Amino acid sequence: MDFFSGRISELIEQLAMLPGIGTKTAQRLAFHIVSLPEDKVEKLSRTISETRKHVRYCAECFTLTDSELCPVCRNERRDHGTIMVVETPRDLAAYEKTGKYEGVYHVLHGAISPMLGIGPDDIRLKELMKRLEGDVKEVIVATNSTLEGETTAMYISRLIRPTGIRVTRIANGVPVGGDLENVDEVTLLRALEGRTDL
Amino acid sequence: MDFFSGRISELIEQLAMLPGIGTKTAQRLAFHIVSLPEDKVEKLSRTISETRKHVRYCAECFTLTDSELCPVCRNERRDHGTIMVVETPRDLAAYEKTGKYEGVYHVLHGAISPMLGIGPDDIRLKELMKRLEGDVKEVIVATNSTLEGETTAMYISRLIRPTGIRVTRIANGVPVGGDLENVDEVTLLRALEGRTDL
Repeated sequence: MDFFSGRISELIEQLAMLPGIGTKTAQRLAFHIVSLPEDKVEKLSRTISETRKHVRYCAECFTLTDSELCPVCRNERRDHGTIMVVETPRDLAAYEKTGKYEGVYHVLHGAISPMLGIGPDDIRLKELMKRLEGDVKEVIVATNSTLEGETTAMYISRLIRPTGIRVTRIANGVPVGGDLENVDEVTLLRALEGRTDL
Repeated sequence: MDFFSGRISELIEQLAMLPGIGTKTAQRLAFHIVSLPEDKVEKLSRTISETRKHVRYCAECFTLTDSELCPVCRNERRDHGTIMVVETPRDLAAYEKTGKYEGVYHVLHGAISPMLGIGPDDIRLKELMKRLEGDVKEVIVATNSTLEGETTAMYISRLIRPTGIRVTRIANGVPVGGDLENVDEVTLLRALEGRTDL
């Protein structure tokens, strides 16, 4: 790869180490970056460095943020008695984008996976239980609909049930706007089981 | 997008301005970056900034590099009498990766496009003609197989023909390893026209 120059090749190499960025994309990005005005590139470089330096976990929900509490936990108009449990900050972002959820979150940073040797102590479960000592009415488990996500959901529900706090799970079903013929059988059966009266 | 923090949102925004990076990918990249060890992030940030500062065009072939001449033009073992004309440094990279081309390059930085108002003076054509005053045997036109690339190839061939230097065009045909049924008709016809004796 050294037909450009040491520096450009080095940039391509470093970009290619990012997830989902192959050599070709890294090359495209590198050429784009060197063709940008110098002040824009300085800004990008500085933002990367500064963001990394200041990032931390929200003291309440453990999402990534750059202050003691994240904007959601800081927001007094949110319903702090309803906690949605998600696996990652990206899942939090997905629900925030709907603009309809008014509760707060708890980010586990993973899911229980006996296969990968990830147990209940390796994710932020103790921290969730600690939060339930406060005034919490409902825990909505929104872990992924995968083996690991379901295992985690079951574990959480068993853990919380004795406290008397309501534990719910987001629904499985046919995606809105999706053709039935393109939906897998397990989802179709779940959609049937979860049917509601019209 | 401000449910993380000003800084993380700013990083996502800046990454999303890169070509081919949508909001979701930018988010994934941002989370990856903030989860990396701080020294790795510093290195990435510095490489981006340094590369941009030192990048320039090769004085001979106009590819991007960080010294007066690029590694290809500097290499005395390359055949400097054969010049392959490409649209972008990425095209140069593609041919360099074959490891079989022994000549040098000329990067036009674009192609003639009446539609986009890009004329012969907007790409590095004058610089190509200047190079032909030296000892050049052949110019291989390897612009893209698009309307713009073909227009540029025709223009270059007409420009060079009076000099007596050989001008060739890379072949159109069926991609190696490709199924005929997946190849478009124009390519199939070009492959037929370009057939060679076995």
